[in-house]
Amino acid sequence: MSSERIIFGIDPGTNIMGYCLILNKGKKFELINIGILKLSAYSDHYLKLKKIFETTLGIIDEYNPDELAIETQFFGKNVQSMLKLGRAQGVAIAAALYRSVPVFEYSPRKIKQSITGKGSASKEQVAAMLQNLLLIKEPPKYLDATDGLAVAVCHFFQKNIESEGKNYSGWKKFIADNPDRIK
Amino acid sequence: MSSERIIFGIDPGTNIMGYCLILNKGKKFELINIGILKLSAYSDHYLKLKKIFETTLGIIDEYNPDELAIETQFFGKNVQSMLKLGRAQGVAIAAALYRSVPVFEYSPRKIKQSITGKGSASKEQVAAMLQNLLLIKEPPKYLDATDGLAVAVCHFFQKNIESEGKNYSGWKKFIADNPDRIK
Repeated sequence: MSSERIIFGIDPGTNIMGYCLILNKGKKFELINIGILKLSAYSDHYLKLKKIFETTLGIIDEYNPDELAIETQFFGKNVQSMLKLGRAQGVAIAAALYRSVPVFEYSPRKIKQSITGKGSASKEQVAAMLQNLLLIKEPPKYLDATDGLAVAVCHFFQKNIESEGKNYSGWKKFIADNPDRIK
Repeated sequence: MSSERIIFGIDPGTNIMGYCLILNKGKKFELINIGILKLSAYSDHYLKLKKIFETTLGIIDEYNPDELAIETQFFGKNVQSMLKLGRAQGVAIAAALYRSVPVFEYSPRKIKQSITGKGSASKEQVAAMLQNLLLIKEPPKYLDATDGLAVAVCHFFQKNIESEGKNYSGWKKFIADNPDRIK
C-alpha cells in the first residue's frame, strides 16, 4: 500500500447523501472535498437511486479513491425504511465495486466512538471534533456533510490502529464486530 | 412504443438471482433466455453484490432490453435481511438506471395473482402456468429461475391490461397500489 491514499467517505440516505474525500499521508490526513447530494428534491424513487449511483461513480472517476468507507446501520423504524436504505447503499456500493474500489463499512456508533471516544456522541460533538482535527475555522455548512467526513476519518483511524489490510469483507464478520448494533 | 420489445425480468436475492428475457410482440411473448446466478458459492457480501451488478449490466448490454421488471417485497424476517435484500435490489437497479432502462416492480402476490389468478399460489403452480403459457415441454431446471420469468410475464400482462406508459415511478405510488404487502 502506498503511503498516500485517498479515502472516499459516504453516508448514503434517501433524502440526503453526505460525502467527503480525504488524502491520507502517513499518519496525517487532509480534506480534499466535502459535500452533500440533496435527494429530497426528487420525488421519484428511481431518480434518487440514479443520482446516488451517478454521483458516486462520478466522484470515483474524478478522484480515483483507493477505498470507500460507508456508514451503515442495522436497525430502523421498520422493514420498509431498511429496504430503502439498503437500496441507497446498494447503488453507492455498486459504483465502487464497478470501479474495483474496496468497500469498508462502519456503524454510526463505531464512527462516533472512533472520532470522539464516545459511541453516544451527538452530531454536533462529532462535527466539532472533526473541525479540530482538520484545523478548519468554520464547521461544514451542512451537518449532514460531516457524516461523510466522519466515516472517512473513522476509516483512517481504523487503518492506522489495526493491522493493514483488515476489512469487513463479509457481512458475518461485520455483525460479529458490531454486536451492539443488532436488534 | 414499438410493437416489439424485450422485457428483462429479475428476482434478485442474496443467495440466488433468477432472471429471464422475453420478447413481447403485440399481444404475444416468447422466451429468449432464462437462467439463474448462484450466489451462495460466494461467502463475501461485496463479491455477491458485484456479481449481481455485473451480471445484470452484462445482460442489459447483450440483449438491450426495453424494460426491467423486478420482484420485490416489503416484509421480511428482520431489518437485517431487508437491508441485505435492499442492497441486492439496489445493485441490480443501479445497472438498469446506468443504462437508462426503466424499472418496474411487482410484489410476489401481484405476480402470482397476475399469472395464476391467485395471489396465494405456490411456486409450483406458478411454474406450471408459465410452462403452459410458453408452450414448453419441461419446466425450467431450477424453480428459482421461474421467479425471474414470472415477474417478466407479470409485467407483460400488466402492460397489456393497463394504459400504456403506467409505471411505479414512485415508492409512494407502489405502496398505495400494494397496501396488502405493507406490514
